[in-house]
Amino acid sequence: MQAARDIFAVKGPALSTEEVARAAGVGIGTVFRHFPSKEKLLEALYHERLDHTAERARAAARAPDPGVALFDFLTETVLDSSTKIALADALADAGIDVRSGAGTRAHDLTDALTVLLTRAQRAGAARADIGAPELAAVLYGASRAAAFAVSEEVRSRTVRVILDGLRPPSRRAGARR
Amino acid sequence: MQAARDIFAVKGPALSTEEVARAAGVGIGTVFRHFPSKEKLLEALYHERLDHTAERARAAARAPDPGVALFDFLTETVLDSSTKIALADALADAGIDVRSGAGTRAHDLTDALTVLLTRAQRAGAARADIGAPELAAVLYGASRAAAFAVSEEVRSRTVRVILDGLRPPSRRAGARR
Repeated sequence: MQAARDIFAVKGPALSTEEVARAAGVGIGTVFRHFPSKEKLLEALYHERLDHTAERARAAARAPDPGVALFDFLTETVLDSSTKIALADALADAGIDVRSGAGTRAHDLTDALTVLLTRAQRAGAARADIGAPELAAVLYGASRAAAFAVSEEVRSRTVRVILDGLRPPSRRAGARR
Repeated sequence: MQAARDIFAVKGPALSTEEVARAAGVGIGTVFRHFPSKEKLLEALYHERLDHTAERARAAARAPDPGVALFDFLTETVLDSSTKIALADALADAGIDVRSGAGTRAHDLTDALTVLLTRAQRAGAARADIGAPELAAVLYGASRAAAFAVSEEVRSRTVRVILDGLRPPSRRAGARR
């Protein structure tokens, strides 16, 4: 998996299982035993990212200040989403629906987001009229917007604008630069 | 173009130029003269959507209440974006970069967004710390988020949350349902 991560970071979906085997110092048969196709390998990388995100959401839900924890978690997740987007696009190109295929993992992430959001809402740091499905969609949209932004500056301002929409009226960063 | 629009609405990127020729009641040679490949046809459909969006942005910029006009334009554009996304994805799959290929059209849209946003900012209806690049990225992210949302209800709440981020602190819809 470490070798697959490293190679995907450089070559993206053009990676080959042969390269991964070479970099990991194992035979191609070993890789194929675990991942019968390149798509299975990409799917495993994608699932690993989902697990990592869910674990971070759970950690954030245990943090002392739920509002700060929610917005820090979202900002980090969005700004670190390019690999996840590249994997999701590669899987979609291969005809694999990442949302339906993610199964238990997607549920774990939804559960973690629900706890994190509910705590922030109780603390008055997030708007009260949304739930985990809206938060997940905002997270997805913000990640896509970040990938679309033409520069680092535009990216950071765009992410702040979108996430500000999650705050209740009294807590908006608003025109702050 | 009308035939291509109709067939794309039903079949998506699986449409064939032969079908378009049949539906338009012209020979395949006529279609190929205008669109030497299916990708050129999809690109023409995409450009048509961009032109339409820019035209709507210009109309919104002439409306009496700039704030209402901006948010109505954005909401309509996002909720009507599924065809544009499908076309952009099909072109990306064919290796065509829609952003760099859109040329003058993208500039026209940026110009129209700039006028619309500036008028709303002057009226105090949009936050002051963003420009057209951020607005374009938010529009793109909101469109992707709308496509990701699991139901109509989640979609409409998600779009409202994201667009609320564009409002100055005093004008947020906030916890209103």
